[in-house]
Amino acid sequence: MASPRPFDEGRMTSDIQIARQARKKPILEVAEGLGLSGEDILPYGHDKAKISHAAVTRVGQQPSGHLILVTAISPTPAGEGKTTTTVGLGDALNRIGKRATICIREASLGPNFGMKGGAAGGGRAQIVPMEEMNLHFTGDFHAITSAHNLLAAMIDNHIYWGNQLGIDTRRISWRRVMDMNDRALRDMVVGLGGSTNGFPRQTGFDITVASEVMAILCLSRDLGDLQDRLGRIVIGYDMERRPVTAADLQADGAMTVLLKDALQPNLVQTLENNPALVHGGPFANIAHGCNSVIATRTALAMSDYVVTEAGFGADLGAEKFLDIKCRLAGLTPSAVVLVATIRALKMNGGVAKADLAQEDAASVRRGCANLGRHIENLRAFGLPVVVALNHFDADQESELSEVSRFCAMQGVKMIVARHWAEGGAGATDLAREVVNLVERGETGFQTLYGDEIPLWDKIETICRRIYRASGVEPAPGVQAQLEAWERAGHGHMPVCIAKTQYSFSTDPARLGAPEDHVVPVREVRLNAGAGFVVAICGDIMTMPGLPRTPAAENIGLDGKGQVEGLF
Amino acid sequence: MASPRPFDEGRMTSDIQIARQARKKPILEVAEGLGLSGEDILPYGHDKAKISHAAVTRVGQQPSGHLILVTAISPTPAGEGKTTTTVGLGDALNRIGKRATICIREASLGPNFGMKGGAAGGGRAQIVPMEEMNLHFTGDFHAITSAHNLLAAMIDNHIYWGNQLGIDTRRISWRRVMDMNDRALRDMVVGLGGSTNGFPRQTGFDITVASEVMAILCLSRDLGDLQDRLGRIVIGYDMERRPVTAADLQADGAMTVLLKDALQPNLVQTLENNPALVHGGPFANIAHGCNSVIATRTALAMSDYVVTEAGFGADLGAEKFLDIKCRLAGLTPSAVVLVATIRALKMNGGVAKADLAQEDAASVRRGCANLGRHIENLRAFGLPVVVALNHFDADQESELSEVSRFCAMQGVKMIVARHWAEGGAGATDLAREVVNLVERGETGFQTLYGDEIPLWDKIETICRRIYRASGVEPAPGVQAQLEAWERAGHGHMPVCIAKTQYSFSTDPARLGAPEDHVVPVREVRLNAGAGFVVAICGDIMTMPGLPRTPAAENIGLDGKGQVEGLF
Repeated sequence: MASPRPFDEGRMTSDIQIARQARKKPILEVAEGLGLSGEDILPYGHDKAKISHAAVTRVGQQPSGHLILVTAISPTPAGEGKTTTTVGLGDALNRIGKRATICIREASLGPNFGMKGGAAGGGRAQIVPMEEMNLHFTGDFHAITSAHNLLAAMIDNHIYWGNQLGIDTRRISWRRVMDMNDRALRDMVVGLGGSTNGFPRQTGFDITVASEVMAILCLSRDLGDLQDRLGRIVIGYDMERRPVTAADLQADGAMTVLLKDALQPNLVQTLENNPALVHGGPFANIAHGCNSVIATRTALAMSDYVVTEAGFGADLGAEKFLDIKCRLAGLTPSAVVLVATIRALKMNGGVAKADLAQEDAASVRRGCANLGRHIENLRAFGLPVVVALNHFDADQESELSEVSRFCAMQGVKMIVARHWAEGGAGATDLAREVVNLVERGETGFQTLYGDEIPLWDKIETICRRIYRASGVEPAPGVQAQLEAWERAGHGHMPVCIAKTQYSFSTDPARLGAPEDHVVPVREVRLNAGAGFVVAICGDIMTMPGLPRTPAAENIGLDGKGQVEGLF
Repeated sequence: MASPRPFDEGRMTSDIQIARQARKKPILEVAEGLGLSGEDILPYGHDKAKISHAAVTRVGQQPSGHLILVTAISPTPAGEGKTTTTVGLGDALNRIGKRATICIREASLGPNFGMKGGAAGGGRAQIVPMEEMNLHFTGDFHAITSAHNLLAAMIDNHIYWGNQLGIDTRRISWRRVMDMNDRALRDMVVGLGGSTNGFPRQTGFDITVASEVMAILCLSRDLGDLQDRLGRIVIGYDMERRPVTAADLQADGAMTVLLKDALQPNLVQTLENNPALVHGGPFANIAHGCNSVIATRTALAMSDYVVTEAGFGADLGAEKFLDIKCRLAGLTPSAVVLVATIRALKMNGGVAKADLAQEDAASVRRGCANLGRHIENLRAFGLPVVVALNHFDADQESELSEVSRFCAMQGVKMIVARHWAEGGAGATDLAREVVNLVERGETGFQTLYGDEIPLWDKIETICRRIYRASGVEPAPGVQAQLEAWERAGHGHMPVCIAKTQYSFSTDPARLGAPEDHVVPVREVRLNAGAGFVVAICGDIMTMPGLPRTPAAENIGLDGKGQVEGLF
């Protein structure tokens, strides 16, 4: 998401105007820069393409490049510019002579019709074509919707035709999905209207990015792995409380067929014509919030450097990137860029939203407690860290000095990054420091916990070591459920914690570096296909609603056939 | 759909095998054959493309070529090979030196997971790439699903935020759609779970091809027309029984944005590398069942001949093509090809399904009554007709002679067409006769009824003159509803009759040429955006279910990554 620029209104050029002025290369030329031929890609129009399964297989998935993670401190509601920094750093690495590829997530369609949204990066650090990426793009999310809902239809159809598997219609956890903000679909009774329509039961829809199929697509190494994972999806339980899987319903093959094109990574470009793979987009709360493993591995095989990001702040996004994605995909990151803004530091230092524009070095200093804790956490994974201060015009010298001084005390460099205003040229200092960290080779990446410890201990480890909770409280039945899954052979899985992104605690109002907080684990869910256990620690919305005045009301085509109101 | 070939099992090559052996030209070469450049098309992979809005506008939509409709006698459940004949005739016209383009509908995704289906044509008369066309293709149907469901979400959202328009939640006719066979979604109560999820109300899902958005996309001339039509959609009524439209909800602009790519016609090719535009696919019962106007007009501007088809038998498909599509789009067809098979003639002559393989010239003769009535009907539109006897290996000389003799008596040529086995070479006789009819120029196309007569009279005209009903019986309220729509300014619209395709009557068991039957009009619906009134005359299913053993259970990828079980 683009950084918020409240002082932006009077500027000559908005993100979308910059994006439209981009001199895009034909996508084939971008592909050729990666060593790919016209045969290796499947064009979608002239400015986007998929890299074919054959090419993905041929270039090999032996990661040879260096993987750089861009993450952030605890954010303001508008985000701190992780994507912008990811793009700017990628462009800057190319400027200083490294072959760098960017890997980010795809955007969800539905939310664009609620709040004005969209964009992939911002200012002069963007990925294009912006409009297509915020609409149907190459159809991946539609394919995920279809595959998810085919399984749902096969469940009700199985029950309709006699329920040979003995599925307990009260214990079906597989809902349906739609890439739309539609609160009316959260909770419903289907199968009404008489016996020809099946057995009535209560269920609902989630938004597509919340689908386990999305998480599976993003963690699969190839089509075979994809089908195996789809087959392992647990859709619910039978009358003897045994799990029923997608493979039991023989849905895994057809779901794989629906997803075979979607599994191919999408190639687009930055404003500076550098390659970007934009592929997959799982939720960052109930899922791991990273782009696809297949895109990351393919990019690593074709580049010196791959710059990628993870959702939310580092407590959630980086932890999941490292403990879920890197663990399951066998990836070893080389360095972490921790994005901070003066705004977010002030907010974490206790400044009210209305006062963020005022110079306030003391609050920035207080807010650095948040930054410091994220630095400590990332070091616990054995990774070198650099702080990227994403520069805004309103930033004051006194404020920047506070951050710089704090970082120096932590033994970490802080680099002011001006990619939003200047493109890659504004982030070459950052790029040089990243190369520096990587070439010094002081990385000793390790996950936070081993596969072998009990699931509950994994939850406790994250809560205590990353969130610094003084306690972790399971709701009744949670621990028994985890033990049951361990007995069923799922104990080796990592855990994915769903909680607020605004605080280390589960209370979004406790900013800074809160201590003495207790994490309540309300519910646990098994994503046997994706390969992780979800621990729900807070109110998690899996189907958003539209606001009173949806952005959709102002979206349309202008006289030239260009989209208005989407950005 | 492919012709059924019950004796096909032992053959060396199935449809899908033939399709995979096709030597496809790069889609750019196919486009160049139509006078289009690389800039004019948006490739989707290497074997499909969209023709850009700019190119559609530039080549102009002045129909200069001749439009040939392929329709059929009252069919068997497996269909009589309209698509196969359309493809074969297109290839044959190219073989005899005419620049011919084929225009057919896109396939719906959902039903493929129910019954083994798919295919676009069959044998050596096919359009490729078959697999993509039966899966996501270029994403048009997904875009329609999104646009349809955005409007639905905006309706419930409007009510949630105070219902300023005063929508009567009991009288919302706009449902949601999904491209899936999912009977559990036919009838449901949404908005459960408390006040944050909205107001509970009863509604349901239809399959995407039944969406009015599909019909609108297929009848729109350009983006402006598309948006105007979307805005006119009536989603239901307010508490004063006044219609509420998509424009009232300000949804038309965003829906147009979602559909802007989908409105561009899709270009693919036949096995013989001739161009085919495959675009749009409305239901043939509650909608008009034809490919898009924009594809037909664009093809006519680039070709000498355009061969297209309409759904179901000529009583439904041809009537709607002529009275709805041609009327609303200002198209003048030049000739009609009426497809018959010995199987269908026998069935219409009273032979049971199990006995269709036995030689039975007498039954064929009796079945010709059905053929004769369709010929008469088509002539009533002022169009020259040729009968294409779609040849099967099991056809006997005695049976073919009966048809030939019957046609001669009607003053119509019957041509045995062998395109299934021989490709375009098997249909050159048919192509020559089509050219003959066109060049003789004895066409005086007229619609069956004028715009100005009352809606009920339009229904009666079709029922009496085409179906040969002795009476038409409106359910209570139907005529008052039609009169209300006339007062509201919708009286000029054509009507679209939804009834069984298997009989001229509304009883699917009354084959041949039934007389003395009464058509009950159970319900009427206003499609103000598409621009027609629907009269429901029978049981119409708008959300299919899956069978006991869905095809999905056997669909998967083989060792080479090719799709199995879909065809």
